[in-house]
Amino acid sequence: MPERIKVRVATAKVGKYATSESGDSLEMVERPHGGLSLVLADGQRSGRAAKAISNIVVRKAVTLLAEGVRDGAVARAAHDYLFLHRGGKVSATLNIVSIDLVSHTLVVSCNSHCPVIVVKDGHLSLLDEPSTLIGIYSGTKPVITQLPLEPETYLVLFTDGILEAGRQSDRRLDVATLAQELLANSAGNPQALADALLERAVAADQGRPRDDISVAVVAVVPRDERDNVRRMLVSFPIR
Amino acid sequence: MPERIKVRVATAKVGKYATSESGDSLEMVERPHGGLSLVLADGQRSGRAAKAISNIVVRKAVTLLAEGVRDGAVARAAHDYLFLHRGGKVSATLNIVSIDLVSHTLVVSCNSHCPVIVVKDGHLSLLDEPSTLIGIYSGTKPVITQLPLEPETYLVLFTDGILEAGRQSDRRLDVATLAQELLANSAGNPQALADALLERAVAADQGRPRDDISVAVVAVVPRDERDNVRRMLVSFPIR
Repeated sequence: MPERIKVRVATAKVGKYATSESGDSLEMVERPHGGLSLVLADGQRSGRAAKAISNIVVRKAVTLLAEGVRDGAVARAAHDYLFLHRGGKVSATLNIVSIDLVSHTLVVSCNSHCPVIVVKDGHLSLLDEPSTLIGIYSGTKPVITQLPLEPETYLVLFTDGILEAGRQSDRRLDVATLAQELLANSAGNPQALADALLERAVAADQGRPRDDISVAVVAVVPRDERDNVRRMLVSFPIR
Repeated sequence: MPERIKVRVATAKVGKYATSESGDSLEMVERPHGGLSLVLADGQRSGRAAKAISNIVVRKAVTLLAEGVRDGAVARAAHDYLFLHRGGKVSATLNIVSIDLVSHTLVVSCNSHCPVIVVKDGHLSLLDEPSTLIGIYSGTKPVITQLPLEPETYLVLFTDGILEAGRQSDRRLDVATLAQELLANSAGNPQALADALLERAVAADQGRPRDDISVAVVAVVPRDERDNVRRMLVSFPIR
């Protein structure tokens, strides 16, 4: 009998220092057959202008995913939509991670210069095949990777606020090594890992992030047979 | 200077015993000006048939909320959509709770026979004005209540799996009293409260829920000035 498993997805984000809104958008949506997709976009510029861009990209993707459209088509459609509406003049990064219960895989779609970190049974690898940002060039496609939906698998995604953190003070992060170290320290708790990675990036920017920063962690882990509850927790500051 | 606050929203749900899917649908969506809406629907029947109903209701509501449509119009539109598509033959409950940063209120829309529990500064009240399920009668409207967005405020929402729990064994829950007691025990942690209420209901059904059960808790609480991170955590069993 196969081991019982669960998926935990955790996110943490902050806006650039002294802006009222993060320009990153990050949403999750239930898939028609019970899985879940996570969509992360970082719009060009910062603050409200970036938010408007990343928001239309994420809304388009989430709506299509909820209708059962396959991930590769969703990323293409999000690109086409942004390209049409902004005339090829603004770009965004787009990452989609789906827990697909039909193919029983993790489907990772990338249109970003930020790699996705994979830690499988303690072994680190990177999904860093070059991909193109959406919104600028006609016919942009995502780079898609499928991974088995098996424990223990961790994916770590982030926007470039993480890559750029500490650039001013020459304290940039070695994100892959740091993620593996923080994962070990957090005993596999995805929220603790996302929080810790974000905290390190903010510290590298001396407490005043120079860009919007978002981190997402997807964890496929064993579960107790009796734990059959679906849970969601959202927390955000309002003033 | 006003006190700094944050909002925490927690949900927990299980399906009826021996069904593969919960017929309840529960989603959260970011509002255009940075707030958040929680949408909960319970479709008539159970399992896949109920899921199909609650899912189209929640998808319609979430899409409109993300476009900035006001809550009262969203509930009417969700009704009209279900009424049209199912010819007035199937019903669903619908609850929407919005953290509205424009009006600075909690907006609670009800089309359900389940009351919403409010605990403000330790004082309990119920939003239980009679409302009509959506999908059956022409022109159905929600009952809407606006509450100030002030700490400490807790809202507890649930589907009728909670009200019906224990009916077979004459062990029904006094939900309002129980919620207040569990809130005190959980030190204001909304996930602990949602989990505890769900657990009591499952126990009243002797470990085999006779219906889908969903619980959602919205907490408006003070925050530490430095805690400006937006977080989301989802956890679900996949086999």
